Amino acid sequence: MKVALIGLGSVGRGVLEMIAKKDLGLTVTGIADSKSGCMDASGIDIVQVLAEKRKNGICGDRTISAQDIIKNADYDALIEVTPTNALSGEPAIGYIRAAIARKKHVVTSNKGPVALAYKELSTMAAKKGVMLRYEATVGGAIPIMHTLEHGLCGNQILAVYGVLNGTCNYILTRMAAEGLTYEQALMEAREMGYAEADPTYDVKGIDAAIKLVILANTIWGNGVKLGDVDLTGIDLLTPDALRLAEDEGCTIRLIAEAIPEKHLLRVSPKIIDKNHPLVVEGTLNALTLETDMAKEITLIGKGAGSVETASAIIGDLLYIRDRYGKCA
Amino acid sequence: MKVALIGLGSVGRGVLEMIAKKDLGLTVTGIADSKSGCMDASGIDIVQVLAEKRKNGICGDRTISAQDIIKNADYDALIEVTPTNALSGEPAIGYIRAAIARKKHVVTSNKGPVALAYKELSTMAAKKGVMLRYEATVGGAIPIMHTLEHGLCGNQILAVYGVLNGTCNYILTRMAAEGLTYEQALMEAREMGYAEADPTYDVKGIDAAIKLVILANTIWGNGVKLGDVDLTGIDLLTPDALRLAEDEGCTIRLIAEAIPEKHLLRVSPKIIDKNHPLVVEGTLNALTLETDMAKEITLIGKGAGSVETASAIIGDLLYIRDRYGKCA
Repeated sequence: MKVALIGLGSVGRGVLEMIAKKDLGLTVTGIADSKSGCMDASGIDIVQVLAEKRKNGICGDRTISAQDIIKNADYDALIEVTPTNALSGEPAIGYIRAAIARKKHVVTSNKGPVALAYKELSTMAAKKGVMLRYEATVGGAIPIMHTLEHGLCGNQILAVYGVLNGTCNYILTRMAAEGLTYEQALMEAREMGYAEADPTYDVKGIDAAIKLVILANTIWGNGVKLGDVDLTGIDLLTPDALRLAEDEGCTIRLIAEAIPEKHLLRVSPKIIDKNHPLVVEGTLNALTLETDMAKEITLIGKGAGSVETASAIIGDLLYIRDRYGKCA
Repeated sequence: MKVALIGLGSVGRGVLEMIAKKDLGLTVTGIADSKSGCMDASGIDIVQVLAEKRKNGICGDRTISAQDIIKNADYDALIEVTPTNALSGEPAIGYIRAAIARKKHVVTSNKGPVALAYKELSTMAAKKGVMLRYEATVGGAIPIMHTLEHGLCGNQILAVYGVLNGTCNYILTRMAAEGLTYEQALMEAREMGYAEADPTYDVKGIDAAIKLVILANTIWGNGVKLGDVDLTGIDLLTPDALRLAEDEGCTIRLIAEAIPEKHLLRVSPKIIDKNHPLVVEGTLNALTLETDMAKEITLIGKGAGSVETASAIIGDLLYIRDRYGKCA
């Protein structure tokens, strides 16, 4: 299967490294970052492109844009891994639209398009007979979408509860373990590279809320939006609140929860029993799916990371290949 | 899709109840228990058969056997849910062989055939162009096989670690929480219906070892057998051992682990950090898959139960239908 990749940040580089390293049967025929691009229908030398990117910060010809690759390269599936723009979803929405218009499958790790334009893009993909897959948008390496699609097929999903932001979970873990203040734990998270210079999206719960919107739309197709999420961050939490929870054998986690029957769509710090499977440590993510037959299924794993996210993207690509290959 | 079902214990009844209750597009054309059977190519009245089973202990005509159903009924997939015979795998191996010979898909919850005759049966299924699926054999409702097959596709699985026996986990949880002796906790587990009158298979680790063998053969195709598993049960554990572990912030769990690189295939009580995702409470099951890209992914859920196991079986059936339907 031929693939083109747009976006050469940590995730894009991780995907290319894994394709170069593993014998997955994937040929890369187009690559673009924000400044340059390259294409070769017979297969690009990935190792050379990654070296060029490291050395000169570009991946090819400065006159070739992402849109050029999407519109002209010879590929079966587009890997869209540009940074998330949570306000407009652009330019990624345009990229994905252009690829689907050419009847190309799309695999993305970009939360913007899926949170903001899920209905339009998934309807368009269905019409064109291609797949739009986005396992990497929620829970990093954890195969949540595959579990919903296959593992729990036949089940009615009644509710979801998740720890979907590793930065917040790290801060809460450190506050509980060491009695740190929020500010101290945030500083530590920054030093460890787990928090951005501006941590607003993470600590205010916005990142978790975007993921919750993606989950809800995937499961229930209910067209919810970021503005529908009842949102409370962790930035006002005190060490005292955590200590009180710990005294009761509990702890506090930033939980994203959706229960359609109760019209509940919320991200907020919640007191949970320490023995609950959702109580994970550090930057881990966790998601509990409450279903009618399987009851509660919890999935735990790394919510971020270059190679970890590549795992989700490659799983999507191989699924497309397997699915369409077997039927062809 | 037409299905025939062999075995009307708790799992078989759960599957039929869910097929009757949900609109899954599955028509049941044959049913057999150990004493009787019924078939109808246009669809059996499931509710009536379940009522008959409850009232008279049979499901139809005493002159119709399971083999009659398998050989003569009109079905696409056989649901084989007879009790596990861990020594011979029979009569289930014979049932599955007969169905595959007729080019019928097979879905089973029966550990015997998969642990003892995996290579023969899976090779035969591949030759005949049908699927042999057994999600329900390991971890009950937890979609482990689907996760290996799809969610983590492209990953190399380096090791597996699991809590695969709910009875042992319940006993260990109660010993740790209440300081009970092994005998006291076992008695409680019996009263709760979590342990058999003869708990040997569970507490000696045999049940967990059979599941480990199924996992290892599925993942690595390495042909390991029950006799290859280094086995220690929980029946000699003392409350003192648990107390010592607890003093260090740890606890003890019966862990099934396979690490091919270290030639390790073992079921034994292990001391684990209480914060480790594998440390689940009560009768829950949990499995950690260690992979090259996604790193550690842990799955937690109910390891047993009528409807919970039905969830896994129905997931397998719908996967077969979806897969073959889409390609047809």
